[in-house]
Amino acid sequence: MNLTKEQKQEIKDQQSQENKTKRVTAPELEKVLYEVIPILDHGFIRVIDYMGDDTSIVQAARVSYGKGTKKVSTDSGLIKYLMRHWHSTPFEMCEIKYHIKLPIFIARQWIRHRTANVNEYSARYSILDKEFYLPAAEHLAAQSQNNRQGRGDVLKGDQAKKVLDLLKNDAEQTYNNYETMLNEKYDGSIIDENATGLARELARMNLTLNTYTQWYWKTDLLNLMNFLRLRADHHAQYEIREYANAMLDTVKKWVPITYEAFMDYRVGGTEVSSKGKKIIQKLIKGEKINVEDSGLSKREWNELMEAFNLKDKLI
Amino acid sequence: MNLTKEQKQEIKDQQSQENKTKRVTAPELEKVLYEVIPILDHGFIRVIDYMGDDTSIVQAARVSYGKGTKKVSTDSGLIKYLMRHWHSTPFEMCEIKYHIKLPIFIARQWIRHRTANVNEYSARYSILDKEFYLPAAEHLAAQSQNNRQGRGDVLKGDQAKKVLDLLKNDAEQTYNNYETMLNEKYDGSIIDENATGLARELARMNLTLNTYTQWYWKTDLLNLMNFLRLRADHHAQYEIREYANAMLDTVKKWVPITYEAFMDYRVGGTEVSSKGKKIIQKLIKGEKINVEDSGLSKREWNELMEAFNLKDKLI
Amino acid sequence: MNLTKEQKQEIKDQQSQENKTKRVTAPELEKVLYEVIPILDHGFIRVIDYMGDDTSIVQAARVSYGKGTKKVSTDSGLIKYLMRHWHSTPFEMCEIKYHIKLPIFIARQWIRHRTANVNEYSARYSILDKEFYLPAAEHLAAQSQNNRQGRGDVLKGDQAKKVLDLLKNDAEQTYNNYETMLNEKYDGSIIDENATGLARELARMNLTLNTYTQWYWKTDLLNLMNFLRLRADHHAQYEIREYANAMLDTVKKWVPITYEAFMDYRVGGTEVSSKGKKIIQKLIKGEKINVEDSGLSKREWNELMEAFNLKDKLI
Amino acid sequence: MNLTKEQKQEIKDQQSQENKTKRVTAPELEKVLYEVIPILDHGFIRVIDYMGDDTSIVQAARVSYGKGTKKVSTDSGLIKYLMRHWHSTPFEMCEIKYHIKLPIFIARQWIRHRTANVNEYSARYSILDKEFYLPAAEHLAAQSQNNRQGRGDVLKGDQAKKVLDLLKNDAEQTYNNYETMLNEKYDGSIIDENATGLARELARMNLTLNTYTQWYWKTDLLNLMNFLRLRADHHAQYEIREYANAMLDTVKKWVPITYEAFMDYRVGGTEVSSKGKKIIQKLIKGEKINVEDSGLSKREWNELMEAFNLKDKLI
Repeated sequence: MNLTKEQKQEIKDQQSQENKTKRVTAPELEKVLYEVIPILDHGFIRVIDYMGDDTSIVQAARVSYGKGTKKVSTDSGLIKYLMRHWHSTPFEMCEIKYHIKLPIFIARQWIRHRTANVNEYSARYSILDKEFYLPAAEHLAAQSQNNRQGRGDVLKGDQAKKVLDLLKNDAEQTYNNYETMLNEKYDGSIIDENATGLARELARMNLTLNTYTQWYWKTDLLNLMNFLRLRADHHAQYEIREYANAMLDTVKKWVPITYEAFMDYRVGGTEVSSKGKKIIQKLIKGEKINVEDSGLSKREWNELMEAFNLKDKLI
Repeated sequence: MNLTKEQKQEIKDQQSQENKTKRVTAPELEKVLYEVIPILDHGFIRVIDYMGDDTSIVQAARVSYGKGTKKVSTDSGLIKYLMRHWHSTPFEMCEIKYHIKLPIFIARQWIRHRTANVNEYSARYSILDKEFYLPAAEHLAAQSQNNRQGRGDVLKGDQAKKVLDLLKNDAEQTYNNYETMLNEKYDGSIIDENATGLARELARMNLTLNTYTQWYWKTDLLNLMNFLRLRADHHAQYEIREYANAMLDTVKKWVPITYEAFMDYRVGGTEVSSKGKKIIQKLIKGEKINVEDSGLSKREWNELMEAFNLKDKLI
Repeated sequence: MNLTKEQKQEIKDQQSQENKTKRVTAPELEKVLYEVIPILDHGFIRVIDYMGDDTSIVQAARVSYGKGTKKVSTDSGLIKYLMRHWHSTPFEMCEIKYHIKLPIFIARQWIRHRTANVNEYSARYSILDKEFYLPAAEHLAAQSQNNRQGRGDVLKGDQAKKVLDLLKNDAEQTYNNYETMLNEKYDGSIIDENATGLARELARMNLTLNTYTQWYWKTDLLNLMNFLRLRADHHAQYEIREYANAMLDTVKKWVPITYEAFMDYRVGGTEVSSKGKKIIQKLIKGEKINVEDSGLSKREWNELMEAFNLKDKLI
Repeated sequence: MNLTKEQKQEIKDQQSQENKTKRVTAPELEKVLYEVIPILDHGFIRVIDYMGDDTSIVQAARVSYGKGTKKVSTDSGLIKYLMRHWHSTPFEMCEIKYHIKLPIFIARQWIRHRTANVNEYSARYSILDKEFYLPAAEHLAAQSQNNRQGRGDVLKGDQAKKVLDLLKNDAEQTYNNYETMLNEKYDGSIIDENATGLARELARMNLTLNTYTQWYWKTDLLNLMNFLRLRADHHAQYEIREYANAMLDTVKKWVPITYEAFMDYRVGGTEVSSKGKKIIQKLIKGEKINVEDSGLSKREWNELMEAFNLKDKLI
């Protein structure tokens, strides 16, 4: 990731602000505000703004449940209760805004979370930076044989090199031709003074999906947790998981109590179906169980056994 | 509106906070943060938290349009451009949270704006305050004769008094019986130590729709403007308009440039249909116009003439 | 619930339609289309329209996962897989519209589900029917002593009678005064030809929260299931649960395969936290467990034991 | 656009359905249900399902306004009234679902309309078709000189040929290398039996943004009109406008009365700001106007004059 001199100065200016406010603040998050947190080879996330903290959640819950919340004596106890029982609206009282640089194919996954506010760099108006994602060798994996959406073993030397070369050459060539069609270099210099360039809104179609884009992305804490639950999960694609993990860190700095409850009840938890509950009950009683009588498919059976780390019961 | 001693102390504590932040701040809004702004007889709004200011809108627009925005030299010019051309996402970058006390029948109108986050005081958990809305004499209006949803003349002395008495007596009686059913007074004291009270979630159904409730209400600036455009309009019910007008004031303190553009293009502006445009064109050319040839209904015709203050053309 | 002669005729007309369509249809749901399904004393639900069926979910999933879904051979297997892994978008491909009559205090709970489309009968324009909810004797319960939002024992004879009388008298009196203020009876007849009535938008505030309202309510299947999961749950208030249960029946007729997966994975399932998983693992291994070492609060412990029906482990 | 034999058969099967339903139907839309409507060189739209018609809007409005709507005697008059006064919820009662094939760079614009339900073909699971968008010669336009997001003159012979060659060669080369990395051809045949292919979720990043994707896209009529208002506008990019125009045709077949009101009040209408209204009033009175006293910027002034076709007043 290369920041221009201008960008570095802008960030420095933002960080040197020292404003007074009567709003609640999150001191740990303030420390990293505006900071560039690098992701992948050219990407980053930056926390640009936020609103509320753990006490905002408690405040909203207490207005909802009024005198009814007196019994839950601590803020921590109340937040855990809310998380456990899937109360949603108190967590919507907190808001956060990120500046994110990410490859287009990841942006396409990301945007499917519809509840956020987004302002993306527009290639209709402006020329995209000459930056594209190339996976590190250890992330260049083969298609998984038993999971249609997963990765298998890492590619070996020769094949890995070949793939990387193809990705690099194609990205560079298509970007160069993008400049040729625009009749303009990425730095704004004109290529041929006597020619006219193709409209930007057309030329962009020649770029490959690993080209980097950037956006401001703003969401409330509830929807952020829904995003992180899916995208920090080990089923998520490695590239988006890297972003999700870095964002988890910012959540920890922002709302530490909520973070802890989230890790316990959502990220580290599991769901058990009606049929699954019966199997667990039998296991606890020491009764014999088998997949045929369980009503579970083979796949469901294994998912249940894995959730409770019962490796010996896998079939 | 009666605040308890506890509530007054809480507000005082909130207002005396002096935190440091690197976030952008809105100094005029900071001055009224947490302050109780009275509405109607017992209602209020309070700004509890906010995120962003006019520069946040500009920042988002400039990332979207990149180098393309250099031509619009000023922030003010850019915000006006965005408003005029119905750009929406940059205005979503700002967020505000209110604490609002309002009669239930107004809350029912309000909640139809679905894009906000809400935490309402729950009468399933807690006892509602003994406060109900009684209109001031000058707002006690008859049903409009020509507008199914509007108000006509103000009721005269005797009838006005009768209506007010009915409203007051019914609200007090139903509230008293609410307490009787609960076996508990609004201050928490038990009425009959040997009896058990009806479940709160049931007893509440005896209250009238002018009983006050309260909630935290959080939304982004775009959706707030959509709300204000409808609810500060003279077609809106007087009672909700009072809230909308007070909120308009807070928008002015928060994002003054956006406020000005909003007043010019949305609140003070008008829409003209395809057929209406042709009428206006004829009027400018000094041609004769008449409703029969216009393709407009009588109602549309008058709405168009009123929009441009052409009283002599009303039919 | 009293339907007018006109309403009965309208329903009969709707039901006697026999249109041809190339769209997919849900034959079991067609049988009850437009039918009045009574709820509580004066409420009802009616299915007015729908779009899609189980195959629409499968169709959407197969376009998403393309050749990847060939391995899941049956529609039923695929729908179960989607439900188990919280895939959401395929279930959004189905849509349903209800006509619902319900007490206002229930409508206020209901409307908090923001993702639906709603058109409610407006008391600004029209006079509300003279119908209010009075609980049956067996649902007139005391406030729960250990659950701030729950019900305890049913009230006994004398107290029950007293409560019912209060509810009935207050509803009737406030409704009568509503008519007096309007100077108009619920059937449209004018009370005093020489007087003018109070504006409807004001008079409505005198009604109690058990007055019935009605609306058209349209949502997609995913959000309907989210609604039903919460509102058909035994923690939900009895009155809204009655609506949810009747709607569950319509879901069964509409998308029977999805219904079955929903009952197994959502309604009948449970969640287990990270700490809870460790307890279950110990129980399966026959190890000793105790609340002190578990990291669980007393409340969490009991919720876990109840979820797996381990009554002997309750503390 | 090349449909496989299988796809043609599937469409034929869908179209030959003849189901009975009590739901309302839209006979003109039924005629084109499932039909492939070609867009650009390889794209299409197909209407797959719908719910409701013009009468559904009227039905919802009449329940909202109850007896208050009796005065508006015709369905057409009521729909026009709703459109003119920006009533939104009745239009949400209708729903439509499309199957759409479109280039990825257009899909990225499209997805910004967040209120729709989407299921997109996933290149994590499956191999994308070998189809990419190449503009026709008459749409290969230069960057506009005075509009940062627009198109200027069409490129001339040589330059046009060069651009087309670059687009075509780059798309083919990157697609071929995509297959090489996958070790699999688009038809599913394996390239080298002894090699393993790169994970699909990675290989896809080598494709250019003019590659075609496809999705099911479902929305309600209100949000569809919001989409069409922006995307059928002459400021929209040509490629997405082609889709919007074809969709406008389907709206005309589906809800003809709403379509007419939409064209009159939204598509053909204009907005006038508070300051603009004063200029129009002066013009009607025959007073002199000039940009300096108007409070309008030069740009605003010209937009106003163009809206009312006052070419002689342009500056």
